[in-house]
Amino acid sequence: MVRVTDRPQLSRRFAEVHSSPARDLLTLTSAHAEIISFAGGLPAKEAFDIEGLRSAVESLQLTPALLNYSTTEGMGDLRELVASRLSAEGVPTTADGIVVTTGSQQALMMLAAVLVEPGAVVVVVRPSYLGMTQALTIAGARLVSVESGAQGPDLEQLERVVVDHRPVLLYLNPTFQNPTGYTIPAPARAAIVEMAHRHGFRIVEDDPYRELRYEAAPVPSFTSFDSGDAAEQVVIGTGSFSKVLAPGLRVGWMRPPADLRPAVNVAKQAFDLHSATITQQIVVRYLLGGRFEGALERTRALYRERRDAMVDLLDAALPSGSEWTIPTGGMFVWIRLPEGFDSIRLLEAATAEGVVFSPGVPFYTDAPDTRRIRLSYTTNAPDGIREGLQRLAKAVDAAG
Amino acid sequence: MVRVTDRPQLSRRFAEVHSSPARDLLTLTSAHAEIISFAGGLPAKEAFDIEGLRSAVESLQLTPALLNYSTTEGMGDLRELVASRLSAEGVPTTADGIVVTTGSQQALMMLAAVLVEPGAVVVVVRPSYLGMTQALTIAGARLVSVESGAQGPDLEQLERVVVDHRPVLLYLNPTFQNPTGYTIPAPARAAIVEMAHRHGFRIVEDDPYRELRYEAAPVPSFTSFDSGDAAEQVVIGTGSFSKVLAPGLRVGWMRPPADLRPAVNVAKQAFDLHSATITQQIVVRYLLGGRFEGALERTRALYRERRDAMVDLLDAALPSGSEWTIPTGGMFVWIRLPEGFDSIRLLEAATAEGVVFSPGVPFYTDAPDTRRIRLSYTTNAPDGIREGLQRLAKAVDAAG
Repeated sequence: MVRVTDRPQLSRRFAEVHSSPARDLLTLTSAHAEIISFAGGLPAKEAFDIEGLRSAVESLQLTPALLNYSTTEGMGDLRELVASRLSAEGVPTTADGIVVTTGSQQALMMLAAVLVEPGAVVVVVRPSYLGMTQALTIAGARLVSVESGAQGPDLEQLERVVVDHRPVLLYLNPTFQNPTGYTIPAPARAAIVEMAHRHGFRIVEDDPYRELRYEAAPVPSFTSFDSGDAAEQVVIGTGSFSKVLAPGLRVGWMRPPADLRPAVNVAKQAFDLHSATITQQIVVRYLLGGRFEGALERTRALYRERRDAMVDLLDAALPSGSEWTIPTGGMFVWIRLPEGFDSIRLLEAATAEGVVFSPGVPFYTDAPDTRRIRLSYTTNAPDGIREGLQRLAKAVDAAG
Repeated sequence: MVRVTDRPQLSRRFAEVHSSPARDLLTLTSAHAEIISFAGGLPAKEAFDIEGLRSAVESLQLTPALLNYSTTEGMGDLRELVASRLSAEGVPTTADGIVVTTGSQQALMMLAAVLVEPGAVVVVVRPSYLGMTQALTIAGARLVSVESGAQGPDLEQLERVVVDHRPVLLYLNPTFQNPTGYTIPAPARAAIVEMAHRHGFRIVEDDPYRELRYEAAPVPSFTSFDSGDAAEQVVIGTGSFSKVLAPGLRVGWMRPPADLRPAVNVAKQAFDLHSATITQQIVVRYLLGGRFEGALERTRALYRERRDAMVDLLDAALPSGSEWTIPTGGMFVWIRLPEGFDSIRLLEAATAEGVVFSPGVPFYTDAPDTRRIRLSYTTNAPDGIREGLQRLAKAVDAAG
């Protein structure tokens, strides 16, 4: 057979997209149970309401309609339930306004495809969730970043960037942010929505951790500050049952403003025709079973205890001069190591000691802070957290 | 609130992508049971092995590992089973070489993203499956089409197009093609694979109908004609359990050559992190239950009978001068109406009579043949086929 020496090339965009270290570490830690992982943003195994989910699975009616192709935008009963929950939180929504997605990651990827012309500017905060910066890079976005602190993005810098770069989109993960843990306060949310209307850009509000609050009352969502008129809204909310029920189900959703719905529907056709019906129905049956709020309360208590266990021990485990904030919800502690430390080198030393975490570098789209690391406290009981942090302390000694 | 008058624009690519009429008609026919639909490419309700699927669901172990996030490329046991089936068909494959996708539609969309630089040329046959031309358009491909006949693409024209346009990719749905029903014969498959190596383009072999053969022995897949060396292969096979088990599960797969696997893995992370674990395990349990081959045989017999019922009545239902070929597998009869007929006008008249079908226009990326229609015979029993074709005959009279 005659052969050319050159292989067909891949899309250049893929040369710029990095694999998620947390996902790659998941492959490692799945195969090595002895490694203690603080790397992923995974629910605790103790958080699953297995009894409730088993009841939901057992109540499935495997009808031909459930087994066959289903409507693109998702099953009506699930869309109703999601819309009701949003409406109860002050975001009036009808089932028509919800599109079910294969996890909220798919919603993010679809929005990147629908909203981003190759070369269009998208503003992200420093640091941001890698899954969305991957999606935006694949879509051909030009990413411009804005610094963030304990209250979220720097609003003055954001306005300057918006004026200078005319973005089509701002991506925010505003509640218990991944990786930093911060929550953007209500007044800043209102100001950012107003800025979006004034300058003509949209906001993706990616809010999977919203329900995992340990202390304060919920902060109103960005969507709640948006115009009441569905045709003029600029905020696109996305959510997920992954952090609060079971990620293996891959059930998420999107709330596109009315003008986006036709394009989102075409995108959903192209992405996977529709999400799995059986997992949609498991969520429906589970929600109708009346156990969700109780299970959420138990999950919050579990994660609060683990957060406390971790933050109590950080002082002893981390090198002197390290900094971190104490999250009031979500899954992560975001740490800055003192000068002289490098997160990737520390990860190598830590892996050798039998503990892993996520280095901060992949969360930056430019000028990464090489001294940042992200620790998740959700999947280990307090004993495991203690043991893992002792191993990390040894790695710190080795790498310091 | 200050408002700009201009709404943020969508990606221009979405202005060129059309919604699937078959999917839109699914929404219509789901709400109106009295309409007889020949529109979709859906499995028959009688084809589902509900008993076998119920056993599979009942045997699920809802462990924390099953409920939590899973590995990007899919669950090991499912990948093993898919690889074994392929190996048994003459395509040596290991579990490492399979990526599980959320239906094969996702595999197609991921491949469009990974392989197609915006502006790159992709060759498609006339006509082609709309779901892939949607995906390619969203990825920014420049589509160049090649005529096809009863044996698939015109090979001389294909070679000229390849020389003139230097495509990165050729998309084929080679067995019981959607919409035409043709199967590309083995010698043409070998010639096209050789052409791909010689000219340096890749081939997507989208083969969801492969197992739905009613008569002949299977034609060897394109992949079986490709190099034995995984690093040099140019064919990327995709497959699905949608047409042979249950589309509601959304379980498909891709067989990327070794050099594509890292980019495909990153794409899968960005698209949905991983496919639902529960539906993957339902497929595993079902396949291990030993009922698959028997169920397939029953499905083949059912569809063969329905094909016969439809083709026997076409002469009486269609206007004189109509042309069609008799498919030897799959789900579709592809019809050319005589001069003076228009498929869209006929669909309007047909809908008024209570029967729907897919007009051929959306299957063309350029110069559509407005006299083509696609009828699916799978979802109606012979009586329903007779009634639907009588309604179609009335619509023909009204529209003629």
